[in-house]
Amino acid sequence: MIRIAVDAMGGDFAPGEIVKGSVLASLELPVSLKLAGDRQALEKELARYPKKGDISIVHASEVIGNDESPVQAVKQKKDSSLNVAVALVKKGEADAVVSAGNTGALMAASLFALGRIPGVERPAIAAIFPTPSGPILLLDMGANVDCKPKNLVQFAEMGSQYAEHVMHINNPRVGLLNIGEEKEKGNELAVSSWPLLKETKINFVGNVESKEILSHKVDVVVCDGFVGNLILKFGESISDFTVSLLKKELSKNIVTKFAAFLLLPALGNIKKSVDYDEAGGAPMLGINGVVFKAHGRAKAKAFKNAIRAAHEAAREDLVGCISKMPACRQAGSAV
Amino acid sequence: MIRIAVDAMGGDFAPGEIVKGSVLASLELPVSLKLAGDRQALEKELARYPKKGDISIVHASEVIGNDESPVQAVKQKKDSSLNVAVALVKKGEADAVVSAGNTGALMAASLFALGRIPGVERPAIAAIFPTPSGPILLLDMGANVDCKPKNLVQFAEMGSQYAEHVMHINNPRVGLLNIGEEKEKGNELAVSSWPLLKETKINFVGNVESKEILSHKVDVVVCDGFVGNLILKFGESISDFTVSLLKKELSKNIVTKFAAFLLLPALGNIKKSVDYDEAGGAPMLGINGVVFKAHGRAKAKAFKNAIRAAHEAAREDLVGCISKMPACRQAGSAV
Repeated sequence: MIRIAVDAMGGDFAPGEIVKGSVLASLELPVSLKLAGDRQALEKELARYPKKGDISIVHASEVIGNDESPVQAVKQKKDSSLNVAVALVKKGEADAVVSAGNTGALMAASLFALGRIPGVERPAIAAIFPTPSGPILLLDMGANVDCKPKNLVQFAEMGSQYAEHVMHINNPRVGLLNIGEEKEKGNELAVSSWPLLKETKINFVGNVESKEILSHKVDVVVCDGFVGNLILKFGESISDFTVSLLKKELSKNIVTKFAAFLLLPALGNIKKSVDYDEAGGAPMLGINGVVFKAHGRAKAKAFKNAIRAAHEAAREDLVGCISKMPACRQAGSAV
Repeated sequence: MIRIAVDAMGGDFAPGEIVKGSVLASLELPVSLKLAGDRQALEKELARYPKKGDISIVHASEVIGNDESPVQAVKQKKDSSLNVAVALVKKGEADAVVSAGNTGALMAASLFALGRIPGVERPAIAAIFPTPSGPILLLDMGANVDCKPKNLVQFAEMGSQYAEHVMHINNPRVGLLNIGEEKEKGNELAVSSWPLLKETKINFVGNVESKEILSHKVDVVVCDGFVGNLILKFGESISDFTVSLLKKELSKNIVTKFAAFLLLPALGNIKKSVDYDEAGGAPMLGINGVVFKAHGRAKAKAFKNAIRAAHEAAREDLVGCISKMPACRQAGSAV
């Protein structure tokens, strides 16, 4: 049975929604969950659910806030729920860790405690992007704002392994995010990365333009963390923005309200096809251990799905798979 | 009266929609239009409109296609409508040029014939982004995929001048596109550009995150052309994608069709608030002349609005305004 450590105090809706999501996961998966956080608060939350699976509490007296400086917080708050959860993996008492807390702190704690997979120069954060024809993976989403071609090649290998073993996509298509189709297109980083990607054994299909992300031209999109973060946040904001515009227009008068009522199922379909909650967590790839970041705004369903993905990654030995990839094994030879 | 040269053969809907847009502009603006293109084809199109303003034809025997290599096409097709239109500005027979044709070719032809404003190292393409609270300007949108801090500072000054003199925004707020608010955030380019932008005399308000673009936190967003192009195309694709999803859901059955009918005005409001056609053309800033690129898919209304913007830029002497900006005058001292 896979054992998963949960940072039960991290995220905007912790501990309530985190505990609820953990309970849901414990009922759906063959999993043993260890919730790190304030014992009293967690016992109170758990008491709400008479029916639950294998869940235990590991007490942690501190909490790292979202606005705290990551490295400082991780070093100073030794007994934070985030540090305690990551330490469970380090001590071999858990096979994976999931947190909806401070992203930078989770990356820092994971690097300190678990380190990198030997050969991987820079771990990456990968995000799952929902599209109507299924989720796609984008990386890096902000861990590395300045990248070398070698980094992108490792991202590509890691993303490909994740798509294959966790998302169960056969021979996943990997694309390089770029402003044109031709290999000469793009900035220096893109132009230098293209031939290196072409040399890999993964299914590199060439450049993918930003307008092709939603049309699911590829399963894995590779870019540096600056670009990835901008694209991810922009996509989220357009999505939120469209919903709020629609809501405003649909509630304008009695006619539009009636029409909105008639459209409930249709609008539900649209929402579902671009539902970030379905996606679950963002894996931190390249860390020598299975680490998942759930969205800070994650509610129970989203957190449950993050646990599900972490479970799958641990069960499939994602770390082992990545460590066997050629570019991820070439330590030091950074281009 | 401002004289504007029009590349009447460039764009997906040329010459029909280009001529129609020109006729509309000639009726609305105190402008003299010179349409470059095949005389016979243009005469036929113009004959459709008994009522029109000051429009003349300048014959051009060739057309540059959208897929042609820009520099090669500009050099080889001397008598293309694009080259002929740009040459009218060069010869002093027009005060501005507007084209919906090949973007790279327009930039190349403009650089060859008109050159850069002395001191401006790299001209930029600026795009108008519609938001519900008014348009904002983003630059660079793809002319410069690798930038130095000095380039971004010049983009900021040029964008600020455009927003003030053509969009008539008082003391326009300029932001640096970045992945966080703090000045230490971002990639090397962003971190090095921040203090230089702070030193300028323009209204630099600091970093702007991609999720803040649509909320109109600033009037001008500055970034390199790789990032700008990715963001612009991604935004367009999400917009197109949402509309097609809505259309699909709304036409599913008799109930949703009825609801859609009730919602026509509301959906019209949404469309209008994010309507790229209202925006008009994308100015090529830093060229020593007024050059506007209309969208390749521009129809009459969008093209008319591009002519309107070009008219305003020529009338307000945008080139003169930019050439007086401090960073745009410091030739050679690129950081």
